[in-house]
Amino acid sequence: MQLGVVGLGRMGRIVAERVMDAGHDVVAFDVDETAVAAAADAGATPAASLAALADELGEDKRIWLMVPAGDIVDATLSELEPHLTSDDVVVDGGNSHFEDSVRRAESTPAAYLDCGTSGGPAGADLGFSLMVGGPEWAYEELTPVFDAVATGPDGHDRMGPAGSGHYVKMVHNGVEYALMQTYGEGFDLLANGRYDLDLEAVARTWNNGAVIRSWLLELCEEAFREEGSDLGTVADRIEGGSTGTWTVQEALEQEVAMPLVYAALAERFGSRADDGRFSRRLANRLRYGFGRHEVVREE
Amino acid sequence: MQLGVVGLGRMGRIVAERVMDAGHDVVAFDVDETAVAAAADAGATPAASLAALADELGEDKRIWLMVPAGDIVDATLSELEPHLTSDDVVVDGGNSHFEDSVRRAESTPAAYLDCGTSGGPAGADLGFSLMVGGPEWAYEELTPVFDAVATGPDGHDRMGPAGSGHYVKMVHNGVEYALMQTYGEGFDLLANGRYDLDLEAVARTWNNGAVIRSWLLELCEEAFREEGSDLGTVADRIEGGSTGTWTVQEALEQEVAMPLVYAALAERFGSRADDGRFSRRLANRLRYGFGRHEVVREE
Amino acid sequence: MQLGVVGLGRMGRIVAERVMDAGHDVVAFDVDETAVAAAADAGATPAASLAALADELGEDKRIWLMVPAGDIVDATLSELEPHLTSDDVVVDGGNSHFEDSVRRAESTPAAYLDCGTSGGPAGADLGFSLMVGGPEWAYEELTPVFDAVATGPDGHDRMGPAGSGHYVKMVHNGVEYALMQTYGEGFDLLANGRYDLDLEAVARTWNNGAVIRSWLLELCEEAFREEGSDLGTVADRIEGGSTGTWTVQEALEQEVAMPLVYAALAERFGSRADDGRFSRRLANRLRYGFGRHEVVREE
Amino acid sequence: MQLGVVGLGRMGRIVAERVMDAGHDVVAFDVDETAVAAAADAGATPAASLAALADELGEDKRIWLMVPAGDIVDATLSELEPHLTSDDVVVDGGNSHFEDSVRRAESTPAAYLDCGTSGGPAGADLGFSLMVGGPEWAYEELTPVFDAVATGPDGHDRMGPAGSGHYVKMVHNGVEYALMQTYGEGFDLLANGRYDLDLEAVARTWNNGAVIRSWLLELCEEAFREEGSDLGTVADRIEGGSTGTWTVQEALEQEVAMPLVYAALAERFGSRADDGRFSRRLANRLRYGFGRHEVVREE
Repeated sequence: MQLGVVGLGRMGRIVAERVMDAGHDVVAFDVDETAVAAAADAGATPAASLAALADELGEDKRIWLMVPAGDIVDATLSELEPHLTSDDVVVDGGNSHFEDSVRRAESTPAAYLDCGTSGGPAGADLGFSLMVGGPEWAYEELTPVFDAVATGPDGHDRMGPAGSGHYVKMVHNGVEYALMQTYGEGFDLLANGRYDLDLEAVARTWNNGAVIRSWLLELCEEAFREEGSDLGTVADRIEGGSTGTWTVQEALEQEVAMPLVYAALAERFGSRADDGRFSRRLANRLRYGFGRHEVVREE
Repeated sequence: MQLGVVGLGRMGRIVAERVMDAGHDVVAFDVDETAVAAAADAGATPAASLAALADELGEDKRIWLMVPAGDIVDATLSELEPHLTSDDVVVDGGNSHFEDSVRRAESTPAAYLDCGTSGGPAGADLGFSLMVGGPEWAYEELTPVFDAVATGPDGHDRMGPAGSGHYVKMVHNGVEYALMQTYGEGFDLLANGRYDLDLEAVARTWNNGAVIRSWLLELCEEAFREEGSDLGTVADRIEGGSTGTWTVQEALEQEVAMPLVYAALAERFGSRADDGRFSRRLANRLRYGFGRHEVVREE
Repeated sequence: MQLGVVGLGRMGRIVAERVMDAGHDVVAFDVDETAVAAAADAGATPAASLAALADELGEDKRIWLMVPAGDIVDATLSELEPHLTSDDVVVDGGNSHFEDSVRRAESTPAAYLDCGTSGGPAGADLGFSLMVGGPEWAYEELTPVFDAVATGPDGHDRMGPAGSGHYVKMVHNGVEYALMQTYGEGFDLLANGRYDLDLEAVARTWNNGAVIRSWLLELCEEAFREEGSDLGTVADRIEGGSTGTWTVQEALEQEVAMPLVYAALAERFGSRADDGRFSRRLANRLRYGFGRHEVVREE
Repeated sequence: MQLGVVGLGRMGRIVAERVMDAGHDVVAFDVDETAVAAAADAGATPAASLAALADELGEDKRIWLMVPAGDIVDATLSELEPHLTSDDVVVDGGNSHFEDSVRRAESTPAAYLDCGTSGGPAGADLGFSLMVGGPEWAYEELTPVFDAVATGPDGHDRMGPAGSGHYVKMVHNGVEYALMQTYGEGFDLLANGRYDLDLEAVARTWNNGAVIRSWLLELCEEAFREEGSDLGTVADRIEGGSTGTWTVQEALEQEVAMPLVYAALAERFGSRADDGRFSRRLANRLRYGFGRHEVVREE
């Protein structure tokens, strides 16, 4: 099978390599020529442009986009559009908003698969979890590719029609925020509690048989091994947040209560309020208002 | 009526003055002689010791304790104990834990009234809200004093038996934390939202007829008038927290869910985590673990 | 001054009456002829249509819309549009989304004031709190009307440009949800705690001098007086939620953490999950999964 | 090595069997004679009483208690006490509160190891995660037994001095509550969202390579396989909660904010409020108070 891979950043490169490792051919394009050259070294057919890539793929094109979510997906699709027919299949493996994916599925001449991809760079060895939305025939058609990119046949599935792949991935990420923050709260209490504990040892012991064992807990273990039980210089600041925000927004639409996921997202916002949280500053001042408790001031 | 007032700090002084203003006599004691002298200047009979105060009060003593909650209440009671009989009444007007009040009610020879006092220093002019627990006859007996100290007859009531006054005050304070934080959140969004707003004007407009008008909102208005719409140097750090903690502890005992009150208390803890919240630091590090997102570091 | 009032429901009627009580003239229109007749009985000039109302108002029209938020505002504006010039002023006193108000301010030929109105039917006697957005000249022009409809000169203010009135009202409502839920949590603990309490008496005592006194707490007092300390047949189901949802959505946009306001909104969603919360059902089942704890089943 | 096992319920039986499978001898006692007979059938030496068990073990006794937390632990220890010396080692493998373990470690003549045990009945095959507190020599001495009961050498570790094992287990359980509720929220949105999804397939896909894969997520997969994507008759009611309550109580003591863990615990309380949450009932009523919104009533 021949697959066009567009976008050869960290994740795109892994996709290309896993597909080639499984014995398929890859035609590779990126706006960065060095990335294309590297892919060629690894065995891919280099393409100098999207048009060249389309040309190389011939009929029944199968193209995997692994470009940053947002305008770049639209720009890429619009450049590909003249070359696409309804026999072609385009996979968007990035973190697009599901409503964008629904829109793109409607406007793209090719069959369109939105593919939520989870596993991070570690997926280079282990393979990814792929949540796919879109037409059944296109999903079937791409199965050999999904088998290669995923951890195996159980690592990918068709969730439903257009948008459902990115929808499930969005919720996955909301859950991810709350799981991280939950482990964080547990270790916070252990770090600030009654005992002087080796948190790597705690995490390792938990990872071997405890109910709460998980991959994220393995990453906690690794973090304590590398940073120490006090996490060294790691700052109280959590970047990112778009997919978690989308999750909460969708939950508002659906009137589903998600207090834990929201709390995790709010911690991110709070961690980035560099001049202090206004809400708490006002509460500080109000304690003076009613009780004449001294106002704590910035020096 | 003659009332012994023990403890002449900010709140005790107000109690003594309001009682005298209502035409009653006050015998005043404090470990600080200057405070006793000041009370004498204001018209009270000074007492050089608790024994002297008891002696001065004669039979059917009525004594109001306005000393810091905790060991000082016990020390005062134990020093008073030899002078007390079951015809006497002791009022604890401080922020004692209700279980301490139940215990003290059982061990004190006198009738014991636990009296939650709300209103802060502003109560000097307006009078306080008094939530009283203990024997009905003792509450009736002290009614003239409560009328004087409270905003009036509606500003005090007997909640129930021993401990109930401080129990209701404890819950009052838990509610207070969450109300403050709630107004804080609203003004946080207004301060960081789409419009450049005069927050004093917002608070004033709300205080004149809006559903959310309240005394705390009047204090917000005052805060913005005095500090400006940006709250100037007011820091993101909220001190205090014992009565709110008690409220959440009791809610855990009773299996009553209090997510908002807990959230407000957690904001206090969070605001005082000077080296950063460990939970968020770990979440920051985990983003590197699974996604190779750059770890934000302290410089 | 002459004011056209469009929409004579509960709130519109109050606006018309307060304006007439202040000595101004009202031209009244509603799609419901009975409502128009009632307004005429109360002294207003009846209008048989929007065109008739516009005609009656002549030049320099001042029109107050008090119609349900959403499409009806747009429909009314579009029917009024041919009659409006830049010398006219239209006030939207309903609960419109601030973005709709910005849009309408741009597209309406007249000056447009978005006016958040708080106070509920009780405002008939007390007057309302009015948060106004839009051009300064139009706000000044309408001041006599705002004086009449509000609690007085302090009960209204211009928050800023178009949309700011409804923006501040949106945040007001988010705060309102959390204040209600906070009082609810406090009384929940009192109702399920260690003492058998008269909750009306608690609320009354608090309302007389306590830090947490407020209008909402007066409404709690009234609720316990009318329903009893156990709230009788009042159900665990909270309707409504649009303005609170908007508040949280805007806070997500602005990356402002509002855990209490969110929690209050989530309680509404949770109270309406008639077949149970799926999240809790899964947690119930997972306890069997890892610990063989018996699954609780619906009968 | 010879180990006395006291308590032959589900978990105690697994401990005895795993220890025997590893080639050690077990002396077994339970108040239920049938349980003792069953253990004897499986190869253990039966004991008719705690005294008999102590007698059988001779010098340097090693005893594993697997009895319900609370008074039964104390009763067992007090009955064993006359037979214990400082050369003996007692392990408490149950869910005791860490403060009880500290107290017992001080009062028991033998060395005392508090051992948090996680993994549930599934540990019969896989082994458990064991978090051990107490004297180092005793932990070393029992290592062969811990190797057998745990998943292996990495499945147990000495956390620190007395109480630390149960302390870490307590926090483990608080984390567990929040992880379960977090997965619950994610699947809640998927179950009530825009797509008709096969939740078993979602969970399976996630478990194969996604960031949020975990044992609890495998149990979600199993739950959806066995109950269906709608969870069938599984009720919205979560029993249990003592260790989670302890976690939050300890976090209050340590002033560590745990909003997610608290939220998960609050969901349990909320799920068991059979007559409705009072907080929400009051909010429902207040909407009538200020806005004359119809009160929702129980029929």
